[in-house]
Amino acid sequence: MSVPIQEQVQQILDNRTFIDLLEDFKANTTALLNLYFPNSESTLKSSILPIQISFSLLVGLLPVVFLLVRKSKNRIESPRKFELPVPDEAKPNWKGKRLNPPNIFQGNDPEHIYCYCPATSQYLGKFKSNDKEEIDLSIAKAKKAQQAFYSDPQFSIKRRRFLRTLNKFIIDNQETIARVACRDSGKTMVDASMGEIMVTLEKINWVLANGEKALANSVRPGSSNMFMFYKKAEVRYEPLGVVGALVSWNYPFHNSLGPIIAAVFTGNGIVVKCSERVRWSSEYFITLVKTALKVCDIDEDLVQLICCWGKDGDLVSGNSGFQHLTFIGSRPIAKRVVTKASEVLTPVVVELGGKDAVVICDDYLKKKGIEGIASVLLRGTFQSAGQNCIGIERVIVSGDRDNYEKLVSLLQSRVDKLRVGSDIDQSEEIDMGAMIMGDPKFEELEGWIKEASENGQGRLLAGGKRYNHPNYPQGHYFQPTLLVDLDPTATIATNEVFGPVLSVFYAENDDKAIELANSTPFGLGSSIFTTNFKHANELCKKLKVGNVAINDFATFYVCQLPFGGVKESGYGKFGGEEGLRGLCIEKSVCYDKTSLIQTAIPKVIDYPIENGKKAWKFVSSLNKGGYDHSILEKCKAIWSLAKNSS
Amino acid sequence: MSVPIQEQVQQILDNRTFIDLLEDFKANTTALLNLYFPNSESTLKSSILPIQISFSLLVGLLPVVFLLVRKSKNRIESPRKFELPVPDEAKPNWKGKRLNPPNIFQGNDPEHIYCYCPATSQYLGKFKSNDKEEIDLSIAKAKKAQQAFYSDPQFSIKRRRFLRTLNKFIIDNQETIARVACRDSGKTMVDASMGEIMVTLEKINWVLANGEKALANSVRPGSSNMFMFYKKAEVRYEPLGVVGALVSWNYPFHNSLGPIIAAVFTGNGIVVKCSERVRWSSEYFITLVKTALKVCDIDEDLVQLICCWGKDGDLVSGNSGFQHLTFIGSRPIAKRVVTKASEVLTPVVVELGGKDAVVICDDYLKKKGIEGIASVLLRGTFQSAGQNCIGIERVIVSGDRDNYEKLVSLLQSRVDKLRVGSDIDQSEEIDMGAMIMGDPKFEELEGWIKEASENGQGRLLAGGKRYNHPNYPQGHYFQPTLLVDLDPTATIATNEVFGPVLSVFYAENDDKAIELANSTPFGLGSSIFTTNFKHANELCKKLKVGNVAINDFATFYVCQLPFGGVKESGYGKFGGEEGLRGLCIEKSVCYDKTSLIQTAIPKVIDYPIENGKKAWKFVSSLNKGGYDHSILEKCKAIWSLAKNSS
Repeated sequence: MSVPIQEQVQQILDNRTFIDLLEDFKANTTALLNLYFPNSESTLKSSILPIQISFSLLVGLLPVVFLLVRKSKNRIESPRKFELPVPDEAKPNWKGKRLNPPNIFQGNDPEHIYCYCPATSQYLGKFKSNDKEEIDLSIAKAKKAQQAFYSDPQFSIKRRRFLRTLNKFIIDNQETIARVACRDSGKTMVDASMGEIMVTLEKINWVLANGEKALANSVRPGSSNMFMFYKKAEVRYEPLGVVGALVSWNYPFHNSLGPIIAAVFTGNGIVVKCSERVRWSSEYFITLVKTALKVCDIDEDLVQLICCWGKDGDLVSGNSGFQHLTFIGSRPIAKRVVTKASEVLTPVVVELGGKDAVVICDDYLKKKGIEGIASVLLRGTFQSAGQNCIGIERVIVSGDRDNYEKLVSLLQSRVDKLRVGSDIDQSEEIDMGAMIMGDPKFEELEGWIKEASENGQGRLLAGGKRYNHPNYPQGHYFQPTLLVDLDPTATIATNEVFGPVLSVFYAENDDKAIELANSTPFGLGSSIFTTNFKHANELCKKLKVGNVAINDFATFYVCQLPFGGVKESGYGKFGGEEGLRGLCIEKSVCYDKTSLIQTAIPKVIDYPIENGKKAWKFVSSLNKGGYDHSILEKCKAIWSLAKNSS
Repeated sequence: MSVPIQEQVQQILDNRTFIDLLEDFKANTTALLNLYFPNSESTLKSSILPIQISFSLLVGLLPVVFLLVRKSKNRIESPRKFELPVPDEAKPNWKGKRLNPPNIFQGNDPEHIYCYCPATSQYLGKFKSNDKEEIDLSIAKAKKAQQAFYSDPQFSIKRRRFLRTLNKFIIDNQETIARVACRDSGKTMVDASMGEIMVTLEKINWVLANGEKALANSVRPGSSNMFMFYKKAEVRYEPLGVVGALVSWNYPFHNSLGPIIAAVFTGNGIVVKCSERVRWSSEYFITLVKTALKVCDIDEDLVQLICCWGKDGDLVSGNSGFQHLTFIGSRPIAKRVVTKASEVLTPVVVELGGKDAVVICDDYLKKKGIEGIASVLLRGTFQSAGQNCIGIERVIVSGDRDNYEKLVSLLQSRVDKLRVGSDIDQSEEIDMGAMIMGDPKFEELEGWIKEASENGQGRLLAGGKRYNHPNYPQGHYFQPTLLVDLDPTATIATNEVFGPVLSVFYAENDDKAIELANSTPFGLGSSIFTTNFKHANELCKKLKVGNVAINDFATFYVCQLPFGGVKESGYGKFGGEEGLRGLCIEKSVCYDKTSLIQTAIPKVIDYPIENGKKAWKFVSSLNKGGYDHSILEKCKAIWSLAKNSS
C-alpha cells in the first residue's frame, strides 16, 4: 500500500527538530545570498544572515498568528444560542376561530388593531394602537440604549456577535419564522423562504462581510490646489442617533429586519413602525431581535416596535426624536409622511411602488428558447401573489411576433395550472397564497382587468377575478391572471397592480420596448434579457429606473446593491454601502498631513489689512498660481505672490 | 562667457545620429546584462539582446506617446477664449445715482425687483419677478438642451472643455468678477477673491481632476452567498435630467457657479433661482456661464436663471419639472420648500445655517501662542462681514484662564483697529465691507447684543451697533463686534448671527467645551485646535456636526469634501463625490460574470410546484448552505439540496 504524499512529508517533518530546520534554512538562505550577491564580501553575507533569518521566521509565523487571531476573534464573536417559544398560531394544524367580519378595525373597539390570517381569516390577537406618549417613550428608550451601545468599548465586537447570533437563529428556525410570516400574510412557505428569509440572511452576511469596510474612514483626494498639498481630507461615519423605519406589510419579517440590521450595525437605535396589517407577526419578529440583543449583552431597548392607525401616523413622521426615517409604502402616504417630516426637517428615504418591466429582446428567445424565461416570468410575477415591490409588473417582448405568441401560449398553459390556497398546514399542494388586502383591493383590480379586456386594450387569457376558496370562504384570494396584447394606455398598464397579474406587451423593436418600459410614472426596477451584453448595457442606460437586472430578475436587491427608485418610485437608497452610510453622520474631516506645516494667515491679508491693493494682488496671484493650467502663468503668479506676501 | 549646461547637452545630442544612440544603448544594455547575469553564457546574452533592445525602445517611447496623447487631449479640451463686456456699474469710480429708499421692493412697481449696492445704495437696475409661465419655460428649455447635451458623442470632451474655458475666463477676469460681486453684495475685493473666486476655481479643478473617477461605474462586492458567485454588481451614474438650485445671497458668484459646475459635469440641465438680493450680479454671472457654454458648442439653454419674490417661491419648489433640488438658505424657508417639494416627491438637499464653534484646547495656546490663532479667528469671523454659512460663530477656549484672557485682549486690540467701508473703488483702506441685509437684521443683532451685555450674559468689548458710514449714509454697515465671557444660554449664543460678531466663550476643560459646542440646534461645521492629533480625533468624534477642520477653519469646504450639516443645519450633501453622484440616477445593475452561467429556476420550485414539502426542503437547504457559518452544516445543506433539487 503506498503512503500518500502528505503523510510522507509529515513523517519527514516529524523526525526533525527545530534546530535541524533552522540549519536547513540557514543553508538555503546562504545559497540565495550567493545567487543575489555573487561577488560580495563574505562579511556582508554574515551580517545580513541573522536579519534574514529573523525576518523569514517572522514571515513564516504570520499565517499561524493570523489563524490564531482569527480563531479567537471568531470565538469572541461566535453566535450565542437562544430559544423562543413558538406561538401556538404558528404551529401546524392550529385550530383558531375565525374573525368575523375579517377586518383589522372592529367598530366596537376602535383602540385596538385586530389581527387575522388573510388565508383562513382565523383571529390572531389584538394590539393597542400606540399613542403619542408611547411613541415618545419608545424613542427615548432607544436613545438611551443607543448612547450606551455606541460608547461601549466592545461596540464592534457586539454588533458582529449580534448579527452572527441572528444569522444562526434564523437558519435554525426557518420553519417557525416562515410559519409566523405565512400566518399573518397568507403567503406560501416557499415564498416566505425566498422573500423573507433568504434576503434577510443575505443582508446579515453581506453586512458582516462588507459593513466595516463601508463604514471605515474614506480618504478623499483633497484640494486640487498645489498650495494646499499639506491637507488630508476624509469622511468618517458615525451613528445619527435614533432612526425610524415605517415599513410595509408585504414582507413582515424582512421589511422589519432589514432596517434593524443596518441600524444596529451603524450604532443607531431604531423604532420600527410596522403596518397594522402585520402587527401580530411583527411582535414575534421584534421579540426575536430583542432576545438576540439581550443574549449579546446589548440593551434590548435599542430596537423598538410601535404601531398605530394611519390617522395617527403623523405622530411618527412628524416626531422630532428621529434623525432619519425610512418609509416603504405607497405614494399618497409617502407625501403625507414627507410633508410631516419636513416640519421637523427629518431626512426621509422614500421607497414606493414600481411598475417594473422585463424587456425580452428578440435574440434572447431565438437563442435561449421560451421554457427558461417562462419559469422566471412566472416566479417573478406570482411570488407572494405579486405583492412584491420589485415583482414583475410588465413583460415586454420585442421583435419576432411568432416567438411572442409561442411564449404567450406557454405562459397560458402554465398559469392555468396554478393552484391557490394555504400551505401553512401543508394540507394541500398550492402555488400561490392569499393576499393581505381584501375586497377593496380586489374590486379595483377586477375593474382594471375588465376595463382592459372590454375596451379591447388587452386579451384576458386566465383569471381576472377574486377566488372563493372552498375551505376558506373568508380568505383573501385572487385568481392568477394572464393579460396579453396589452395596450400601454390601459389603466392596468400604467398603475401598480401589486397582485397576481401577468401582463404581457408586444413591442416591434427594442427601442419601442424601452420607450414602453419608460412610459409609466414609476422608476423602481427592471430586467433586460438579451444574449448580447453590449446591447444589454445600451438598453440599460436608456431605462429611467433605479435598479436593473440583466438576464435575471431582482438580483440587484439580493446582491445588496443600493436599492431605490427614481421618478414617482421615490428617492434615497437603502441597502449596500449607501444604505449603511445613509444612517450615519457623514462627517467631512480635514487635517494637516504633518504637524510641521500648518495654515497661517499670510501677513498681507491679516486683519487689520495694511494695504488693500497689495492684498488684492496677493490673493489674485494665489488663485492664478493655484489654478491656472499654464505652467508659465503659474510661475509668474508665484513670483507675484513672493513680491506681495509681506 | 560660460555656456549653460542645458545647451551643452543639446549640442552634444545634436551632433549624434540615431545610429550612434542605438550603439550607445546597445553598449549600455550589454553592460547591464553583465551586471545581472555575470556567469551566464554569451549565447544567452546575444539571444536576449535584441529582445531587450526592442523592449527598452518600447518602454523608452512610452513617455513620448503619453505626452503626445495628453497634448492632443489637452488641445481638444483646451479652453476657448471669449470676452464679456464689463458692466459700467462694475467699473472703478462708477457714478450711479442712489436708490431711495434703498429697498429691493418699491411699492409703486411691485412686479420688479430693484437692485442696489448695499455699500453705497447706488441703483443697479430692475428685473421682472418671474411668473409660472416663465419658470416652466426655463425648465422646458433646460430639458431640451440636456437631452441633446447628454446624447452628444462629444459629451465627455465638451464637459471638460467647458470647465477649462470657465477656469481660464475666471482667472483672467478675477477683478471684474470680484467687482461685480462686490457691487451687488457690498463685500471687499479680498473677501470676494477668497470666498467667491478661489472656492469656485477649486471646485472646477477638483471636478476636472476627480469628477470622472467619482462618476465611473462603481463595482460592488455582490452577494455574500457562494451560490451566487457568478453575479457581478455595480452602480452606474447617469444624469437625473433637470435639477434646480435655490441659492442664498451671501456669495452670488460661488453659490450659483457651484451647482452649475456639478450639474453640467453630471450631464444635467440646471435652473438656478437666485436670491432677489443679488439679482443684478446673477445676471452677469449666468451670462458668463452661458457664453462659456456657447463657445464650447453646448446649447446655452442648458443653464437657466430665474428669480421671483418669496411669495412665488412655491412655483419653483413645487414644480414637478425638477428631478432634484438644492436649497441653500434659512430654516423657515427650507421647511416651506421641502413641504412643497414633498407634494411632487422631489428630493431636496437642504443646506441651512450653522453656529460653527472653534474649540481651542489648552495645549494649543501654550505651545503655539496666541498670535497665529487670533489671525485665524479674525479672518474666520469677519470675512464677508460674517455672512458666511461656515463662518466662525463661536470661539470656545478651554483650560487655562490666563491664556484665555491674553487671547481676549489681543483680539480686542485688533478688532478695535478694523475699518468698515467700501473698497470697490479703492478710495479707502478698509477691512470689512457692508452687509446685504439692512435695518431689520441690524435691529435683531443689536437687540441680541444688548440683551447679553445688559443681562450679564457677556462683556461687550467692541462694536455692537450699526455703523453710519460718513460717505455712504444709506449703506448697510455694522460695527465689528467682540463679545466675551458669553453665557451659553444667551440668545446670541444659540442663534445664528450671520454677521460681524466675534463671540468668545470660556470652558473649564475640553469635555465642557465640546458639550458647549454641541449645545445649539445647529450642526454644520466646527474647528478643533490642539497639538495632539489623537486628542483632536477624540474630540472630533464627539462633535455633532457634518464638517470638522482640525487646526484650521473651513478647509473641509475648500478641499471639496462632501458638504452638509446635521440637526437643524439640514441634510444631504453637495460637493465632492457625493455631490456629483447625488445629481445622478445611481443605477444599481446586476449581471452575470460570464454568459456560460445564468440563473435558472430550479425544477423543484418551478410553477406549478410538484411537491410543496420537497420545495420547502430545497429552499431552506439553500438558505442553510448559503449562509450557515459552519462548514459541516454547509456540507449537510448541499447534500440535502442535491437530494431535493429535482
